Amino acid sequence: MASPLKPASADELAKQQRSISVAEFFEKNKHLLGFDSPTRGIVTTVKEAIDNALDACEEAGVLPDIYLGIFRMEGDIFKVVVEDNGPGIVPENIPYVFGKLLYGSRFHQIRQSRGQQGIGISAAVLYAQLTSGRPTLVISRCGKDRKAHQFRLQIKTETNEPEILENEETTWDRIHGTRIEIEFRSSLTARKRLVEYLRYTSVVNPHARIRVELDGEAILFDRASDEPIIPPQAILPHPHGVELGELKRIAAGSTESLESFLVKSFSRVGQKTAIEILELAGLKPNKKANNLSPADLSNLQAAMQQAKVPPPPASQCLSPIGEVLIRQGLEKEYEFDFCSARTRPSSVYHGHPFIVEAALGYGGKLESEGTARIMRFANRVPLMYQQGACAITGCISSVNWKTYNISQSGLPTGPLLLLIHVASTNVPFTSESKDAVASIPEIEREITLALQELGRDLKTFLSRRDKSRLTEEKARAICAIIPEIAEKVSETLEKPVPDISPIEGKIMRRLVAKKKTEDGNVIITLQNYTSHVLDLTLYVITSDEIKSAQPEPFFIEEMDQDQSGVWNVRIAAGEKWQVKYPGTGNGMIDIRGVEENKKVVIDLDRS
Amino acid sequence: MASPLKPASADELAKQQRSISVAEFFEKNKHLLGFDSPTRGIVTTVKEAIDNALDACEEAGVLPDIYLGIFRMEGDIFKVVVEDNGPGIVPENIPYVFGKLLYGSRFHQIRQSRGQQGIGISAAVLYAQLTSGRPTLVISRCGKDRKAHQFRLQIKTETNEPEILENEETTWDRIHGTRIEIEFRSSLTARKRLVEYLRYTSVVNPHARIRVELDGEAILFDRASDEPIIPPQAILPHPHGVELGELKRIAAGSTESLESFLVKSFSRVGQKTAIEILELAGLKPNKKANNLSPADLSNLQAAMQQAKVPPPPASQCLSPIGEVLIRQGLEKEYEFDFCSARTRPSSVYHGHPFIVEAALGYGGKLESEGTARIMRFANRVPLMYQQGACAITGCISSVNWKTYNISQSGLPTGPLLLLIHVASTNVPFTSESKDAVASIPEIEREITLALQELGRDLKTFLSRRDKSRLTEEKARAICAIIPEIAEKVSETLEKPVPDISPIEGKIMRRLVAKKKTEDGNVIITLQNYTSHVLDLTLYVITSDEIKSAQPEPFFIEEMDQDQSGVWNVRIAAGEKWQVKYPGTGNGMIDIRGVEENKKVVIDLDRS
Repeated sequence: MASPLKPASADELAKQQRSISVAEFFEKNKHLLGFDSPTRGIVTTVKEAIDNALDACEEAGVLPDIYLGIFRMEGDIFKVVVEDNGPGIVPENIPYVFGKLLYGSRFHQIRQSRGQQGIGISAAVLYAQLTSGRPTLVISRCGKDRKAHQFRLQIKTETNEPEILENEETTWDRIHGTRIEIEFRSSLTARKRLVEYLRYTSVVNPHARIRVELDGEAILFDRASDEPIIPPQAILPHPHGVELGELKRIAAGSTESLESFLVKSFSRVGQKTAIEILELAGLKPNKKANNLSPADLSNLQAAMQQAKVPPPPASQCLSPIGEVLIRQGLEKEYEFDFCSARTRPSSVYHGHPFIVEAALGYGGKLESEGTARIMRFANRVPLMYQQGACAITGCISSVNWKTYNISQSGLPTGPLLLLIHVASTNVPFTSESKDAVASIPEIEREITLALQELGRDLKTFLSRRDKSRLTEEKARAICAIIPEIAEKVSETLEKPVPDISPIEGKIMRRLVAKKKTEDGNVIITLQNYTSHVLDLTLYVITSDEIKSAQPEPFFIEEMDQDQSGVWNVRIAAGEKWQVKYPGTGNGMIDIRGVEENKKVVIDLDRS
Repeated sequence: MASPLKPASADELAKQQRSISVAEFFEKNKHLLGFDSPTRGIVTTVKEAIDNALDACEEAGVLPDIYLGIFRMEGDIFKVVVEDNGPGIVPENIPYVFGKLLYGSRFHQIRQSRGQQGIGISAAVLYAQLTSGRPTLVISRCGKDRKAHQFRLQIKTETNEPEILENEETTWDRIHGTRIEIEFRSSLTARKRLVEYLRYTSVVNPHARIRVELDGEAILFDRASDEPIIPPQAILPHPHGVELGELKRIAAGSTESLESFLVKSFSRVGQKTAIEILELAGLKPNKKANNLSPADLSNLQAAMQQAKVPPPPASQCLSPIGEVLIRQGLEKEYEFDFCSARTRPSSVYHGHPFIVEAALGYGGKLESEGTARIMRFANRVPLMYQQGACAITGCISSVNWKTYNISQSGLPTGPLLLLIHVASTNVPFTSESKDAVASIPEIEREITLALQELGRDLKTFLSRRDKSRLTEEKARAICAIIPEIAEKVSETLEKPVPDISPIEGKIMRRLVAKKKTEDGNVIITLQNYTSHVLDLTLYVITSDEIKSAQPEPFFIEEMDQDQSGVWNVRIAAGEKWQVKYPGTGNGMIDIRGVEENKKVVIDLDRS
């Protein structure tokens, strides 16, 4: 095999030249598919299998119910099992879907989907046979009148064709769905990242239920919504995005007149636009599309770029998550002080429609130190690796966050979370492993605009918060001297020192609760000095007759000698609420639902 | 073409499933091959064509003589012409080399080469037909007894097979070589980067001559060395790097006994090692290699990893540039104050041998502000894009440069240049466009070690420089008061003011040259007060009799009335040298080879 030391002639070189199968290529360059290391291999395998399961369920309009099992076998061999309730795969196609790279249903369709290229899951099969030597098991069933089929298969690397080791009918309790069992050399070092991938997936796919058995531990990511996603629909190519070679190919396959060829083959082209394009190109509408000279084609393509055509129908082929669902998913997890989300209008690059969504969360459970947490998504799939190589990260770094009162060292710093979702009929990834979005100026522009909008929202929040902090500090300073003033005044006037708490409450913008007994009646007054509505609960524990209170308590519980009364109260900003009952004013009162430093409780019967 | 709104069944989905050709895949994902935009397309095309030309010349042991022409045609169509004096390509293979992706001679060979995958140049052909609709022209000739052949060809995208539009014998004045003419939509916005690519290529390929005609401007990158590079030789796979699937395939194709299979199929495995491996695996040496059970194979692979085997013969299959050539190439360009280079010992990742080379330049023509300039190379090819995504950049950022007295904000800052060259039988790139090296821990470790070594060198230089600056400042201060002291002393003693230059010379650590005439003899004394050896040249222009000088001059030239004498002198640190000749001391003396501020010349006959 060693080549000779003497220089090679053209004939000798010719003998070494040969065709390489795409499976051989990716076996040698498996890091391009996300199989850099055994640690990462497990994350990539799970991701590819779950992406496929979600895509299949969506296409069939089924609410996804996915099972993921990860089992440690002997040594460093792991088994990954993924089962879905999708429509199943017909037995004739199973060997190709799992045993051939570049085989799939979504490559030529112009619509948003997780898988695009027909590489992912067969790459996992390839990785399994390379590291463990073991074939992959696939079971699939297409409906109640159909038998389930079970395959054991691997990939013939030299030819990129499936090799079927077992193919038999079998019984399976699922009516429709697919199950894959795949064994490869790996480790669970990336366990945390794996769980993170599943959590993120669950956030942006609220209609999916994912049950997980991870090396003995059970985790459930339940669905938050019972509505299946409306699957995005395929659209025709847009005239602005068509390149010469592509146009040549489409035209050669058409027997139509040019006019009807344009209308039928491209999106957003009606008769009027078609005529306009053909006039620009200097071509007759009744000329056959498959009869164009190279010059005709070149003119036609130029005219298609020039003509005014509305943008592609993004709402039909794309499926953004939506501002509400993004915010809900995030706030559940992080309990932010502030959160804002944006779904940008759809836009186009190279003829591919895309939509950018972004969200910004501040404070809450986020750590106050360090750089911002970044969550990247493409077509509802979390991007877990190569953050530094991603156009999303680049855009975040190049926004001037100081303008929005956020410190920055490359990335913004502080208790900040940024989520970006790029949805497109063709997300431009930097490699087949689909870890990072490539630098496409049109997409970067949209991401930047979304971030700037969120930055402005945050700035408004921060300056309001700072202003209210300032007001509070001033109030605090005033409150500190009020008692002294009160004392001096009472001395001068020779009157008792007045109760100054309500004044404090007013200045400090709090809720002031006051209990006072006069003429055998207890009166509790709640005054809302804050700037917003308060929903709170008043508890009174006493032996007084709260049964005849006005208004009546929502609930009374008998205790040893006392009774406990509960009132649910809503008080608008600046408003007052009162309850009155006969008694001596014994016992105690408590307010729940208002933060400790936002309320003042004054029991005049006890002071 | 638009898919129905109603959910799809498995049967409907099955109809959409099909195989995708690798050409279709890369046509849609052309950014993966470096064809993100027309601006970049021209850089990528030139790079692929020149890589191929250099590889071909090296394989044939020819000094590369490459012509590159870039011409603006009508509109935004550009023509790129690349011609080499390589061995040529036999006519039968030309359509495949240029018209089929994944076809080449180097994929299965384990040795360093620029092209690895058989994708690059056919990707350029694909890009051309997609953007300009035009086929590519190829002319090649394999020797003086052969005819030249001319092809016009393109790629059938649906099948990834070549489509030959023209194939004829032709006459060509080159005896052997290949010429390609390729036309595509582009721009010259990246002109600067293009020239930079060529300059960098020339630096690391000092044996190549590249003549360029760039849109009317002629540029020559001439060769700096007339020795052809010894082409790296292919080696056998190393037992430590073999994965199970690969072993299975190699073993299945062998009819040998296990012992001789191991010796003949793997590098660094002799009989002794083979026996050791087989004992570890519990396999008999005379068992046939093509008759192994899955368990046998698994045991054999495990044993191959465990056995002690020397690292692969890197010196044979790799071709590092070398410390001297790297330094020469850089210093010519930047005239550094300091430069250091390292070629690290060879190392291995996943069984692939690799060598890291690095150089650090400081000061000179580099700008003193901003981040360091980074030059990245892989297998002698400059990497021009995606610096941020490259493991090399990551390593540079993660070194703590402050330890070496260099400021840092992410990347080091200041007048600094860092060059890194990764040479390997299989450079792990982050994508097919080969712009950035993937994060492989073994490679990152070597890069980091090289950078740290260079950092230490730089620190030594900087602290010496700072120390010598300090010493010089002190000396300067002392020298400033010496004249005053001398004057006072001479006043007090009533003697003439002494000559203080030698004292200054001593304090300032300079060379002091003194000429003095006494009793009809001229004596020139050179005293080396510096801390190192000085190699200098003394020139005397005089009408005195230097022919009878002791020691004799190295060379005398007669001038009008005077003569010029030349002495080449080496003086150790602290030592003295003297020359004596009869005469009146007329004329002048000069010292060459010592910096101006490092010498003091005192002619006592003139003062």
